[in-house]
Amino acid sequence: QSSVTVYGVLDMAFNAENNGQYSKGKGNIYSLDSGVQSGSRLGFKGSEDLGNGLKANFKLEMGVQADTGASAQGGLAFGRAAWVGLSGDFGAVQVGRQNKPVFDVVDSIDPFGTGIIGGSATDSTSATGLGNLVFATNPRSNNTINYTTNNLSGFTGSLAYTAGEQAGDIGKGRGIGVSGSYAAGPLLVAGAYHTENDTAAVVNATKTAFVGATYDFGAAKGALSFAKIKTDNNSVAYKLWSVGVTVPVSAAGAVISSLTMVKNDVVSSDNGSNQFALGYTHSLSKRTNLYTSVSRLKNDAKVNAGGIASGIGATERLFNVGIRHAF
Amino acid sequence: QSSVTVYGVLDMAFNAENNGQYSKGKGNIYSLDSGVQSGSRLGFKGSEDLGNGLKANFKLEMGVQADTGASAQGGLAFGRAAWVGLSGDFGAVQVGRQNKPVFDVVDSIDPFGTGIIGGSATDSTSATGLGNLVFATNPRSNNTINYTTNNLSGFTGSLAYTAGEQAGDIGKGRGIGVSGSYAAGPLLVAGAYHTENDTAAVVNATKTAFVGATYDFGAAKGALSFAKIKTDNNSVAYKLWSVGVTVPVSAAGAVISSLTMVKNDVVSSDNGSNQFALGYTHSLSKRTNLYTSVSRLKNDAKVNAGGIASGIGATERLFNVGIRHAF
Amino acid sequence: QSSVTVYGVLDMAFNAENNGQYSKGKGNIYSLDSGVQSGSRLGFKGSEDLGNGLKANFKLEMGVQADTGASAQGGLAFGRAAWVGLSGDFGAVQVGRQNKPVFDVVDSIDPFGTGIIGGSATDSTSATGLGNLVFATNPRSNNTINYTTNNLSGFTGSLAYTAGEQAGDIGKGRGIGVSGSYAAGPLLVAGAYHTENDTAAVVNATKTAFVGATYDFGAAKGALSFAKIKTDNNSVAYKLWSVGVTVPVSAAGAVISSLTMVKNDVVSSDNGSNQFALGYTHSLSKRTNLYTSVSRLKNDAKVNAGGIASGIGATERLFNVGIRHAF
Repeated sequence: QSSVTVYGVLDMAFNAENNGQYSKGKGNIYSLDSGVQSGSRLGFKGSEDLGNGLKANFKLEMGVQADTGASAQGGLAFGRAAWVGLSGDFGAVQVGRQNKPVFDVVDSIDPFGTGIIGGSATDSTSATGLGNLVFATNPRSNNTINYTTNNLSGFTGSLAYTAGEQAGDIGKGRGIGVSGSYAAGPLLVAGAYHTENDTAAVVNATKTAFVGATYDFGAAKGALSFAKIKTDNNSVAYKLWSVGVTVPVSAAGAVISSLTMVKNDVVSSDNGSNQFALGYTHSLSKRTNLYTSVSRLKNDAKVNAGGIASGIGATERLFNVGIRHAF
Repeated sequence: QSSVTVYGVLDMAFNAENNGQYSKGKGNIYSLDSGVQSGSRLGFKGSEDLGNGLKANFKLEMGVQADTGASAQGGLAFGRAAWVGLSGDFGAVQVGRQNKPVFDVVDSIDPFGTGIIGGSATDSTSATGLGNLVFATNPRSNNTINYTTNNLSGFTGSLAYTAGEQAGDIGKGRGIGVSGSYAAGPLLVAGAYHTENDTAAVVNATKTAFVGATYDFGAAKGALSFAKIKTDNNSVAYKLWSVGVTVPVSAAGAVISSLTMVKNDVVSSDNGSNQFALGYTHSLSKRTNLYTSVSRLKNDAKVNAGGIASGIGATERLFNVGIRHAF
Repeated sequence: QSSVTVYGVLDMAFNAENNGQYSKGKGNIYSLDSGVQSGSRLGFKGSEDLGNGLKANFKLEMGVQADTGASAQGGLAFGRAAWVGLSGDFGAVQVGRQNKPVFDVVDSIDPFGTGIIGGSATDSTSATGLGNLVFATNPRSNNTINYTTNNLSGFTGSLAYTAGEQAGDIGKGRGIGVSGSYAAGPLLVAGAYHTENDTAAVVNATKTAFVGATYDFGAAKGALSFAKIKTDNNSVAYKLWSVGVTVPVSAAGAVISSLTMVKNDVVSSDNGSNQFALGYTHSLSKRTNLYTSVSRLKNDAKVNAGGIASGIGATERLFNVGIRHAF
């Protein structure tokens, strides 16, 4: 009689990492980490039929650090999602804390699904964090109303407005995001734009643009993407290019690889970083899989694009093997 | 086979607010807030039949800020309720964190149900907080044992004891609450008294008394209430009068209005505040409704009865429109 | 269709306590506390059949202070357990935050089940804490992989490895635990060893050894145990002996008693403490019981083995009566 579905993911991995600050071969960190492929979580969701195709929907989703028992997302009770809304013939409206449109789009293009090493960053403590650049520091936003279209002959789009909630100036802290995806047979094309004002007296916006595509050739699925991130005052300015591939090697197994290049335009020379990642996932069932990956993130002499404290000019190496269980 | 019911409420609204500190027309705050009509929450409850009419019962209820994903009630895991108890022919006993008897009684009389603007305070960030005066700072108490009678020909009563848990003095921090309600046909009469000692060397009690009644005329339901709050040392001394009405205007819709007057007896003149609120709720189903309200809280020159930082002598204006979904 | 079981325990008791710092008869603390017999908790667990006897398993278990609504274990979301793993013919592997093997073994021998007063410590605020000495400050560990055998003709064993996660030195912060139990008819014999390095430059390990046995004579079940705890640098050095008995007195009732002696070898004389506890549990059903206990912890002149701030040489007296409900 309960109208609630309890669901979640538990993902734990062994990680070995050398961030280039340690002497070669020695000085590695070995850890057991949570959320390496997909952020560990516990969620509660439901839907009520209101008649005439109208539905009321909600989601509460907690991020979990399964290695320590702590909440993820800085200790929030429901750091991954907390929203209520309506859906129907017109599409869907959600109000509360939720994913930015650009996050869902990046997630749909990235062959690693924003997870495992080499993916576009997660809440995982072992993510290299390249992708976090794309989300203007946070893949989710508070105080947000989001509208998403239904599937219109392959096209779906989202528009999100984040209230700044500052007295006397509706622009301070405001965020606006828009995204669109088009799927047709083997092809998926997607793009997103996000702009987010800070709350300072002189408002400075961080702007992100992302475009990407995947094509499923059958024997393999290729992915291409480009992103640009910059602030109005040029204190932050990145360009990212990424190419990836997913190769099914058996009914249960797939090899995934990606190469991502970053250019930090705030620095005039020696400003590139590149990350190569190779992974393998093996399904034990629809809900449970094993995974492993290796990756290397190499920074030029004057920059550090890594998510962990690897230092300017350092090279970071990562290896993991883990299990992910959805329930 | 699980003996647990998972339930909750998600409530999100758009709010516009001017607290009188801003220049007229300009300087408003626009926000997307959680729990404006009813505090957003996620709960777990259950009941076990022990035979002979005896039952074991429990409730764990978390307050949620759906706009940010944080826990409400200052970050508590189960800030709304955490108790276990027994019920039977004798009534019900509950031990743990729970509502004060005065809170449940105020909730049953207030036409806004302690929610929406104009109601008697909630955990909502946009509540004007008039009602919070009645609860001696907090509508709930820790370390509490509560006894409630069964329905005795229309009468129900509660008695609560809060342990002070201070070494060497059983009186420090102690709270005692009592309430009674009588329902007969269209009439509901209710009253409550609460006294709560602080933990200082020289104990100073905060005392609250509340009486109220509602009468359902069919075309409308009227509500009247009076409350008095004071500390032994007269550092706090309020009187509140409130009159309200609920008018069903269709099968799904109702108009609600209330006028509340507060007198701050610590100040000798220009010590009144009054709040007028007008709201409308529209049910989409038994579990889901839309709501909207406007309210104005006007303070005399020397006082501020508002829950938000509106300043002494300021006038506060609020508008909201939202959705509430129970699951 | 949900693959999750929601379960838990709510345990609340009235406690009276005199820690010897107060004048006799006066100066007691009276409180309503959570988790006196068993830590109050809310859990989520599940299991997925992967075929060929293989299963994927997970558990997320939150400790709850039902008296205040706060999380136990210092505010962790899932302070009691957060792990995922596989089980099958080979046994079971779990990765995440989980019980130390020594904790589960002590729990199986202690007549009070590490609960009620006189038991071997819990998260309860009223536990005297003697047993906490055995767990090297914490009964659970983060970043841990644990292997447990299946039941092998009465024998089960566990081996746990806790990653230190310190850069450049795999030994810093590392923990290793091992345990074994043998059950044959009325007899249970169990032992455990745990060693845990600190993260300082000069690593100092805390080592715990525990052996115990219970024998069920029918009319009563006896328990005997011995533990030794010491650090490499001898800053901590304890020996504990405990003898206990559980006597069923009716279909629903049991009397439990234990005597525990502690010797603090860091101090050369007047270094003993002893605790006597007498309790009674009464089942109302399989899931709900009432309990009560009295205990006295007496410290010699130069030591304090108590878990509450009773002071060196002080005598602590405790009484409680409570209800425990599992769901």
